[in-house]
Order: sequence, then structure tokens, then C-alpha cells
Amino acid sequence: MKFSIQRDRLIQSVQDVMKAISPRTTIPILTGIKIVATSEGVAFTGSDSDVSIESFIPKEEDGDELVEIFTPGAIVLQAKFFSEIVKKLPMDIVEIEVINHLQTVIRSGKSEFNLNGLDPEEYPHLPQISEENVFKIPTDIVKNLIRQTVFAVSTSETRPILTGVNWKVESDQLTCVATDSHRLAMRSAAIDFVNEAKYNIVIPGKSLNELNKILDDTNEPVEIVITENQILFKAKHLLFFSRLLEGNYPDTSRLIPSESKTDIVINTKEFLQAIDRASLLAREGRNPNVVKFSTLMSGIIEISSNTPEVGKVVEQVQSQSIEGEDLKISFSAKYMMDALKALEGLEIRISFTGAMRPFIIRPINDESILQLILPVRTY
Amino acid sequence: MKFSIQRDRLIQSVQDVMKAISPRTTIPILTGIKIVATSEGVAFTGSDSDVSIESFIPKEEDGDELVEIFTPGAIVLQAKFFSEIVKKLPMDIVEIEVINHLQTVIRSGKSEFNLNGLDPEEYPHLPQISEENVFKIPTDIVKNLIRQTVFAVSTSETRPILTGVNWKVESDQLTCVATDSHRLAMRSAAIDFVNEAKYNIVIPGKSLNELNKILDDTNEPVEIVITENQILFKAKHLLFFSRLLEGNYPDTSRLIPSESKTDIVINTKEFLQAIDRASLLAREGRNPNVVKFSTLMSGIIEISSNTPEVGKVVEQVQSQSIEGEDLKISFSAKYMMDALKALEGLEIRISFTGAMRPFIIRPINDESILQLILPVRTY
Repeated sequence: MKFSIQRDRLIQSVQDVMKAISPRTTIPILTGIKIVATSEGVAFTGSDSDVSIESFIPKEEDGDELVEIFTPGAIVLQAKFFSEIVKKLPMDIVEIEVINHLQTVIRSGKSEFNLNGLDPEEYPHLPQISEENVFKIPTDIVKNLIRQTVFAVSTSETRPILTGVNWKVESDQLTCVATDSHRLAMRSAAIDFVNEAKYNIVIPGKSLNELNKILDDTNEPVEIVITENQILFKAKHLLFFSRLLEGNYPDTSRLIPSESKTDIVINTKEFLQAIDRASLLAREGRNPNVVKFSTLMSGIIEISSNTPEVGKVVEQVQSQSIEGEDLKISFSAKYMMDALKALEGLEIRISFTGAMRPFIIRPINDESILQLILPVRTY
Repeated sequence: MKFSIQRDRLIQSVQDVMKAISPRTTIPILTGIKIVATSEGVAFTGSDSDVSIESFIPKEEDGDELVEIFTPGAIVLQAKFFSEIVKKLPMDIVEIEVINHLQTVIRSGKSEFNLNGLDPEEYPHLPQISEENVFKIPTDIVKNLIRQTVFAVSTSETRPILTGVNWKVESDQLTCVATDSHRLAMRSAAIDFVNEAKYNIVIPGKSLNELNKILDDTNEPVEIVITENQILFKAKHLLFFSRLLEGNYPDTSRLIPSESKTDIVINTKEFLQAIDRASLLAREGRNPNVVKFSTLMSGIIEISSNTPEVGKVVEQVQSQSIEGEDLKISFSAKYMMDALKALEGLEIRISFTGAMRPFIIRPINDESILQLILPVRTY
């Protein structure tokens, strides 16, 4: 194997596939990045066996020569060292050559590295996925779908299925739901799907977080293929595979109240900042990070908290409107801030059905996104 | 006590004095920030008893009213909470009032915090320093003096005196020296001193690092006052006190070779980057992070290293000139990189007196700064 390659593209591809590589893997070959040079270009692969990422650099793009292939071939190089080395190479062009069985030389200007490679035949094959039932979503929408739900997954392994995000595909609609059983985030989007297949899968939250970091903020479509136990995301020059979680995701639709007793419309940013300040002194007793929320006269909302040995805080926010019953309720400031940050729009509507029932938060005039929080008993 | 104050100035002052406050202090009152309001303005003080910082906000500056004093007085507020709170307050003006013995109210817009204060009478007094023998150095030079020496202090407590930087004042010259006994950094500067007093003191490296973070990058002078066991730095609206280390600093002048056998002039950045790359594979045996350096023909320098299980690297750099004997020597890549980053100038001169003797690195045509490194025996 011998090729020369543009350093900036090499660095980008290596950074992308590094996101799949775990320094704690117990499979030695997976500490490496697999490099395959063919007459088409060079493919880089990283994997931790849950997530696998392939980044491809074509020989040529928009008339610009990115790679020159002298001899096709393959090698696996230790990811930690290889990624540090490519970042620091002196010249714009890097030459990579396997000289003697697995010995690999990396040259750039007057810099020459000689690395002991690993056998590419030992590297596991990527899942074979037949490309039927492909559906497409613009990249920026995929990123929003992830950002607006994934924070609500459970971080505890007591119910492993809740560490993932439930994706349901039905006719031309994708609905994503995450819950840790104290709060729930839901977002739906229209998809471009020629087929009638239905899916109901659970994608590990960790995989979605990594995917979100790699995807560019464009409106180019991502192609998505779902199989029995894998999902594949295809973007330009990028393949992202994740295993799916096994088991049935709980039916969350019955958790969401269909009516409300108190409805509040409020400026998102002012409310978020008031909650943020109130959380500074929310260290009381068994309920750390819980703030109290109550409706006052003239559309004023009061948020308060108290840490006996330090002090207390009272925040008032003028709402746009309060409709229905007066209310006193307590909830986690963290859950509320997470939910508010995930929402878009200047104003939100919060719909309560009493102090002991879950309440929902939505942008005004947007039914595609919903955040639900369970209150905490303090009043 | 009651005053109102511009939030941005409050945040800046609180951030500055926080640099003296240690979360691990065993003296409860020192977890607080002392606030003293007088008819002149408001002073904030933080201390860990080694370092004390006072930041003053005057009533008025350049015709701009910064503080309005309603009632003079003093209070101590828990630093961790107070600093978090002021950063998040909603309006440009903050009102602080002691209402009931030590109960303190912080108001900004519709936000109201009520903190339990501590008794300002319990707060230790700052050292009383008589202002004779003041000398002055421009702030940017003080910052350079610190940056170019402090990285070389020892981090080990086996010889506590080496954890500080030795400052010697003689006639109109200040010389700063730091060493951990494997390398040494020295920088001197002219000072503006009307007096004939001589000083030879050792300032804790930790204090100098904090001072460097607080000082702005201006050429306004810093006033410096040295006493038996304290040093005081006075900048605009800022007092920075540090205790001095006790004991005699070793005489380092005899360590510095006065002649050389091999002299090399080389581009600082190219040399630094080559050392940086070579250090990536410098994990060999008992000498981690050691690279080999040798002179080749035609003014070429070769730097190499080797980690048997991973691979090896060879770097060549074209020097401006090599004078004197050929040389093979090994040294710590980290020490060399630290020294090169501390130097100014496009080109440096390295003067060796054989493979087993310390060598010195200097910018070309600048005698005010010197870095010295002890080699490691590998050849």
C-alpha cells in the first residue's frame, strides 16, 4: 500500500472515525484505525463494536486531487498514535506506505514516522446492510431530532432500554422519544419515504451523541437504513453504523395528559434565566435542585428556592398569560432547564393538570415537539 | 451597609479576588469574600492566607458612576455562592444591602437573593506594608518575567525553596531565576528604582501564576514593595499580596557554562514543531519523553525517538549554522518545548559544552533571557 493524501482531509477523517474508538476496548485490533486504499480513494474505519464509522476520501473532488494512489492495499494503525501524528505533520501532503509486511512509513517534509501496523485481515467486517427501505432526512433536522431528545435518556443501567431513544417510523412520519421515567422528550418530523415499512427501534443515546458531533450542519439529506439489529446513517463520504438496543420500549403515549387545568405562556429566555438563578440555592434536604413555582396575581410567576445554611432566592417573571386555576408546584430545575434549552421559539406554553401530575412544555404553535416533566412533592 | 453597583465591574472584581480563595481552606471565614463599602467606593477581598487580593471599585471613574453608596459598612459573603449569583443576575445594576445583623439582600430587577453573611470583624487583616522602597515595572514586563521563568519551578515539596522563583534586585536590575534542578530559566529586566536597597527573595510559583492571570496586558507600571516576609504588587485598583518562601535560594550562577563547544542557530518554530513530533514516540524505557539530538552534515540537525512496541520517528531540521564540534545528546522533549515556548524571537542559539554538560538556549542578540537544560544519558 502506498498513497499520498492532503493532510487537512486526512486529519478530518481520522477525527471522525476516532469518535467510534474506545480507549477501554478489550479487543486489541479495535484500538486501531483501518486504512484501505483502492483505485477509488482511501477509506478510514474506527469501531468499538457498538458503533462503527467509515470516512472515505475520494481520489478527486470538484476537480481537486485529494489522494494519489501508488499501490492499493490495507493496514491498521494504532489510533491514539496515528491521530496525534497526523495533526502535527509539517507539510500539506502526507505519504503513507507499508514497506515491509506491517511496517508503515508516514512521511511529510523532513519528518518520517515508522509505525508497527496491525494485520487488516483481523479487523472485523462492517455490518452488511441491504439498501432497501432507505429513507431520507435533511442533516440539520437529524441533528435537531437528536439534540431535542437525547438529553432525556436514562444514564442508569437499571432499565437498559431507557438509555436509548425510541424511533418510530410510520407512513411519512418519524417520532423520537426519550425518557428516564422522570421526564420525557418527544420530537417528530416528516420523512421522505417511498415505502410502507414500519419501524419501532431503540438507538443507544451514546451513538446518537457521537453521530450528532460528526454530522455537518447542512440541509443535504442523510440516508437512513434500519435492519433487525443495526441502523446505518449515510452522509456524504460517511457511513455511521450503530447497533440497536434489544427489548420493547415502553408505551409512553398514555403518560402525556390530553387536557390541562392551568396554561401559562411565557418568554423562554427570561423563564430559563430565572430558573437558572433559582437553582443556585436549590440544595434543600432530600430534593436537591428542586425549585418552587407558583402563580401570583397579574400574570406574575414566582420561582423560589432555599438552602437553609446559605440563604434563599425569590424570582418573579411576568408571563404573557395565565389561564385556569392558580397553582403551586415544585420540579427539578435541571430538567426544566434541559427542556427549555431543547425547545425552539421565543415563547413557550406550559400546561399543568395539578401539582401532582406531569406537565408539558411546548413552543407556541408547534405540535412537533413536546417536553414532559414529573413534579416533585414539596408543597 | 447598602450600595448599588454596576454588575460588569462587580463580576470582574469578584472573579479577581476569587483567584486567592481556596475551596480547601480550613479557616471558615476565608471561604468568604469580604466586602467593605466606604464613601470612596467598594473594596472586595479574597485570601487563602498565602495570597490575598483586594480589588477596589471607586464611586466614579472617567465621569462614569460605578457605585452609589447609601450606607457604608462591611460584610463577608460565601465566595462560591456569591460569585455564581453575580454572574447570573438579570440587570446591569445590582443592589447589595445588609438588612438584619448579617442577613444580606442582593437585588437586580425582579431577582432577590437573601444570603446569610459572616461577621467582617472575624476576617483577618491584610498585611500592613510601609510604602518605602517601592520600585516600578511596566505590567506587560512583569507578565513576561513571570511567564518566562515560573514554568521551571519544582513541583515537588522535597526542596520547598525550589517551588518558588528567586527575585534579586540590585541597583537598577531585577533578575528572576527558577529551577527544578533539571532545568533552569532566567530573565532579567531594568527597573525604575530611586533607592539603593538590595533584595534577594523567593516568591511561590503558585502566587506568580495567579498574579499573571489577574494583571491586564498594559504598559502601565506595577508598583512592587518587598518586606521581610511579604511582597505587594499594586496595579490600578488592585492589591496583590503574597507571602515569601523562607530559606536561602541556591546560588545558580555557577551552573551556567561560560564557554561552549558546539553552537547552533536555528529557527525557533521549526525546531519546536520537530521536537513536538519526535516526543510523540518518546516513551522508551526509564527515560520517558527523552529525544535524541545529533548534528549531521550541511547544517542539518536530526531529532529522533523510539517506542519499541509502537515505532520510531526521525525528524530533520535545517539549521542556520552549526559551529564547533559534532554532537550527539539526549534531553527531555518537554523541557525543551517549555524553554522554546518561553523564548521570544524567530531564531535561537543553543550552546553545548559536550553531551554530559548542561546546555543553554538564548534568543539571538538578547542577553536578558536564558534557558538551561541538563541532558539525559542515553548515547
